[in-house]
Amino acid sequence: MNKVKCAVLGGSGYTAVELLKILLRHPHAEVVAVTSRQEAGKPVSAVHPVLTNRFDLPMENLDPAALQAKGVECVFGCLPHGTSMEVIPPLLDLGMRVIDLSADYRLADPVVYAEWYKETHHDTANLEHAVYGLPELFANAIRGAKLVANPGCYPQTGILGLAPLIRANLIEREGIIIDSKSGVSGAGRTPKLSTLFPECNESVSAYGIGTHRHTPEIEQALSIVGDGPVQVIFTPHLMPMDRGIFSTIYATPRLPLDEGRLVKIYKEYYRGKPFVRVRDTLPATKDTAHTNYLDLYVKLVRGRILILAAEDNLVRGASGVAVQNFNLMFGFDETTALE
Amino acid sequence: MNKVKCAVLGGSGYTAVELLKILLRHPHAEVVAVTSRQEAGKPVSAVHPVLTNRFDLPMENLDPAALQAKGVECVFGCLPHGTSMEVIPPLLDLGMRVIDLSADYRLADPVVYAEWYKETHHDTANLEHAVYGLPELFANAIRGAKLVANPGCYPQTGILGLAPLIRANLIEREGIIIDSKSGVSGAGRTPKLSTLFPECNESVSAYGIGTHRHTPEIEQALSIVGDGPVQVIFTPHLMPMDRGIFSTIYATPRLPLDEGRLVKIYKEYYRGKPFVRVRDTLPATKDTAHTNYLDLYVKLVRGRILILAAEDNLVRGASGVAVQNFNLMFGFDETTALE
Amino acid sequence: MNKVKCAVLGGSGYTAVELLKILLRHPHAEVVAVTSRQEAGKPVSAVHPVLTNRFDLPMENLDPAALQAKGVECVFGCLPHGTSMEVIPPLLDLGMRVIDLSADYRLADPVVYAEWYKETHHDTANLEHAVYGLPELFANAIRGAKLVANPGCYPQTGILGLAPLIRANLIEREGIIIDSKSGVSGAGRTPKLSTLFPECNESVSAYGIGTHRHTPEIEQALSIVGDGPVQVIFTPHLMPMDRGIFSTIYATPRLPLDEGRLVKIYKEYYRGKPFVRVRDTLPATKDTAHTNYLDLYVKLVRGRILILAAEDNLVRGASGVAVQNFNLMFGFDETTALE
Amino acid sequence: MNKVKCAVLGGSGYTAVELLKILLRHPHAEVVAVTSRQEAGKPVSAVHPVLTNRFDLPMENLDPAALQAKGVECVFGCLPHGTSMEVIPPLLDLGMRVIDLSADYRLADPVVYAEWYKETHHDTANLEHAVYGLPELFANAIRGAKLVANPGCYPQTGILGLAPLIRANLIEREGIIIDSKSGVSGAGRTPKLSTLFPECNESVSAYGIGTHRHTPEIEQALSIVGDGPVQVIFTPHLMPMDRGIFSTIYATPRLPLDEGRLVKIYKEYYRGKPFVRVRDTLPATKDTAHTNYLDLYVKLVRGRILILAAEDNLVRGASGVAVQNFNLMFGFDETTALE
Repeated sequence: MNKVKCAVLGGSGYTAVELLKILLRHPHAEVVAVTSRQEAGKPVSAVHPVLTNRFDLPMENLDPAALQAKGVECVFGCLPHGTSMEVIPPLLDLGMRVIDLSADYRLADPVVYAEWYKETHHDTANLEHAVYGLPELFANAIRGAKLVANPGCYPQTGILGLAPLIRANLIEREGIIIDSKSGVSGAGRTPKLSTLFPECNESVSAYGIGTHRHTPEIEQALSIVGDGPVQVIFTPHLMPMDRGIFSTIYATPRLPLDEGRLVKIYKEYYRGKPFVRVRDTLPATKDTAHTNYLDLYVKLVRGRILILAAEDNLVRGASGVAVQNFNLMFGFDETTALE
Repeated sequence: MNKVKCAVLGGSGYTAVELLKILLRHPHAEVVAVTSRQEAGKPVSAVHPVLTNRFDLPMENLDPAALQAKGVECVFGCLPHGTSMEVIPPLLDLGMRVIDLSADYRLADPVVYAEWYKETHHDTANLEHAVYGLPELFANAIRGAKLVANPGCYPQTGILGLAPLIRANLIEREGIIIDSKSGVSGAGRTPKLSTLFPECNESVSAYGIGTHRHTPEIEQALSIVGDGPVQVIFTPHLMPMDRGIFSTIYATPRLPLDEGRLVKIYKEYYRGKPFVRVRDTLPATKDTAHTNYLDLYVKLVRGRILILAAEDNLVRGASGVAVQNFNLMFGFDETTALE
Repeated sequence: MNKVKCAVLGGSGYTAVELLKILLRHPHAEVVAVTSRQEAGKPVSAVHPVLTNRFDLPMENLDPAALQAKGVECVFGCLPHGTSMEVIPPLLDLGMRVIDLSADYRLADPVVYAEWYKETHHDTANLEHAVYGLPELFANAIRGAKLVANPGCYPQTGILGLAPLIRANLIEREGIIIDSKSGVSGAGRTPKLSTLFPECNESVSAYGIGTHRHTPEIEQALSIVGDGPVQVIFTPHLMPMDRGIFSTIYATPRLPLDEGRLVKIYKEYYRGKPFVRVRDTLPATKDTAHTNYLDLYVKLVRGRILILAAEDNLVRGASGVAVQNFNLMFGFDETTALE
Repeated sequence: MNKVKCAVLGGSGYTAVELLKILLRHPHAEVVAVTSRQEAGKPVSAVHPVLTNRFDLPMENLDPAALQAKGVECVFGCLPHGTSMEVIPPLLDLGMRVIDLSADYRLADPVVYAEWYKETHHDTANLEHAVYGLPELFANAIRGAKLVANPGCYPQTGILGLAPLIRANLIEREGIIIDSKSGVSGAGRTPKLSTLFPECNESVSAYGIGTHRHTPEIEQALSIVGDGPVQVIFTPHLMPMDRGIFSTIYATPRLPLDEGRLVKIYKEYYRGKPFVRVRDTLPATKDTAHTNYLDLYVKLVRGRILILAAEDNLVRGASGVAVQNFNLMFGFDETTALE
């Protein structure tokens, strides 16, 4: 079988290197271009020494025509939001399929985008056709999509953690609490004081309280699942570790529930979904590190429902699920290169 | 002024060494005995090398008469719960005052103790007179106490985080959520798989969901503050760091509130309390490391009240507050040796 | 092609789980048995939750006949030294090939074994035929071996770091300094005080000075390479991290050398060795994490030769190189399942 | 007694905040000014939240006349090298005594400075009178100094680790190896890629091989101690921790030595030095964290001498020793505010 020729845009960050590691072991994908404005000209392995002797392609400036000349069929965008919606339209025009890891095409409503991202959306034409790339919920739409908006790292824990309850209409839809704890790689590879080692190590802190942009993303997906508005209170925290997200979710049942039924609902909902593990023991981010698994655990505590969700923020939370989307879009087994 | 002669029971753990470090710089305290069943005969500095050349007293077996012979006036108990209530009664009988860092004298009702600790309380006589040692709430009772039950590390964040709202009757008293994140030293110095470095590092996990014994301790103190029952959902998590507790607390206001008023209530409530800092910026455990400060931050988010509380679990959460209690009991300035 | 049926002995530790992860993705290997005295009866994933839904075989007690009945052709031993030489002989007698990750068959001379391990060797018969499993040096012998002694984690950095210089007889053979820094997983999964999180985190320390058992292992291999005695001073240190070994090696050239020639010697020596990367930039353990690569860097400093060597102690240092040996022994491509 | 009025220059970094914490508990010092070009106007506690409610002085621009007007007698310089020698001369001219934590006045020979720092020295006049502030070696000169060059963090471990041997002329003076491991705070608080959390965590690496500027500083001090040239090979490494330096030093004895005598030499050399602890057990940086102690351990290994030295890089390595110097200069007990 011919390999699908792929390009990775914005190759200098943590999600890009994670994506390259997965694509390098993918039997049906071939990375033919990696772009980076800052690092153009340098081999990928000079920027990411972990790839020394494994992948030495030079990084290049983004040029749609050059990508077309190389036969690129699929583009993975690892650029910051704002930049993505500038560079993606011409690639779509040239017939390439795009999996965008930024936030630019995740929120269907450009008004909501403007409100939370404090920026006007410049590509509402493509936004209309973008598919939210959470395979456990939207696999069919993903299969046929030209443009997939890869989901955010935090949102996946909140959405997949709550979907079974929202779908079955078992919980109140206001005041759902999502208390999330993340490793520092989620903050990106651009040097800043707040992510220096001596600032983060031996410390826990909260940030973006009430204003974090993943809030509307979680609400949008759950509103689709539940066919009506859902409101969450999402509190992200920074942990002294590289990778991993752990979300502790608190929901109020509409009617009394027993725990056995609760667990059964989760296991049935995720039956046949290879990357969601409904666990019988307490999860830990370590159990999901460097994998595409999202682990869930559910329990009744004093009349409330507690859901614990753990994942690797760079694999499941970004690059792994991107390849899962790629597999669906190009007709490969959903788990290829991911187990 | 004569120094108060002190003994530390159970000297081999993390709270004991922290306590010794504070007492060594206390101008009015002198540690004349450190006991340890396991380490008896060894100098303290052999067990805690950080004290090399600073404190070389040999550890001894606990013998009440020997402590009396040394003129011990104040005993700090760093023993496990269950053991404390066995060894403390004779010390009280000999007229020593006791600050017990275990959980044995924290819960006023022995039935509640039995329910959560799965053990019968063997010293209900002294339990009746024990004072819960949270100085910001109970300073007067502490001053006159013979037996102080030093508060738990987690509970202090929950109690002090919620007291202003409970006191002013501003929030619903059911379903209050306390999502706490702790460093590993809180789990003690006894080797076990769950606290090995490679198990904890690069991982976040929850534990004791719905069953953690600090739950009734928090509820008891808040019920006193609020003059009526308070129910919390307390979820502790283990973080990859040595020290520090960060609690994220979610409460539902009974009536609409504005944020300015909320902050003012906190600042007024803690006016004159030297170790509670109501901050205007987001707290981090790092800002409280190795200090006796407990930092609070309060904010309205989508109609709910979020309170963030940070402390050092070994100082503020245990040994620092123990010395704060000691200062009150023996008539010293509350902040001696703690700033 | 039929898969080679494999058994893993001593399945509860860190090297075992790492080995299982690699073998699970190996196209020509099938793990049909995992033994553990302590955990017999439990599914592997109960002990190693990272394998949930991926590998649920129950652990069993070690029974050579049972392994034979399952058609086991290759046994990976992850047992402690001392135990290995008790259980391996009957497996060899039954015709299974063995890759032993313990130290029992690494030292050719039982007298040296007794001196450093403070134990008499009980299986000198098989010791005579054991092959030291460092593929970059002894691939041919490994291919035909019945019993491979998988090399130690530290020794690989010292041996491969020095082999080119020893081989070309360019350095003094006494007083070579190997200053090694290791992550905590190297100390194993048995709970002990010294590897508790709060003891290791935020700390660096040395241990086993002048007595570490990897010393004779390094010297034995280098003596073969150099056809004469080699003496090293090996100092291991414990670092606050999970995985990774970094060795800084100091050697004295016999005659003046220029750096260009030095680098060339290394690059030529390791030409065609897929897992040794002679780097032009400074290595870091992070660049080798979760891979089978061993990175080398060489430089002249004030007349001495400095060699830096970095690896992942669990993959390259144990389970990865074990699979590399497996690939050689069973005729697969050396890199199968390792890239 | 009147307090000595102090100013801290360059107040935004890690050494400055550590210095402020020590000076705030010093009974004979009062910090009346903290300067910072970047943060001028902000209260110190806004930059260092750990000081909230403890020290709220606003930071100011450096103005010698303003410092004089405030009665500043002692200035602590926490500015980068290069800047220090620009701003210190006018302060000395105004009669203030200066403890400079930068490297500008450490190397007596401006030619050596130019060679290693790649900059011309602009203040050779004051350089001539500067005293190298290592109290264990140069206390008398420090007492009378107007300008003290506070020693580097790494150099103290190398110098104090080797001084007893160099002084007694027991070791070869060429090819001494100092293999040092440091926490990340040593790299400062300016954001850069190499000190981002996800770059440092779970990694060990070497840097500045053969070129680190602490090399001539170590050699200069040891040459004074030994009354003749000493040459070292100094290799710094970055460890995944906040604080702490651990140096492993390898020396070759000139004549055979026995270990007992070796240990005795160290204990005698450091008798009466309150902050150097010659330990009988293996040191760890953790045992020195947040203290001014420098721990030493010495052992014979295969004919070589191994010296292990551990310290806290921010306290003993910078701000603690600065206060030790301050105590000597102003006639206070050497240990004031440091125990």
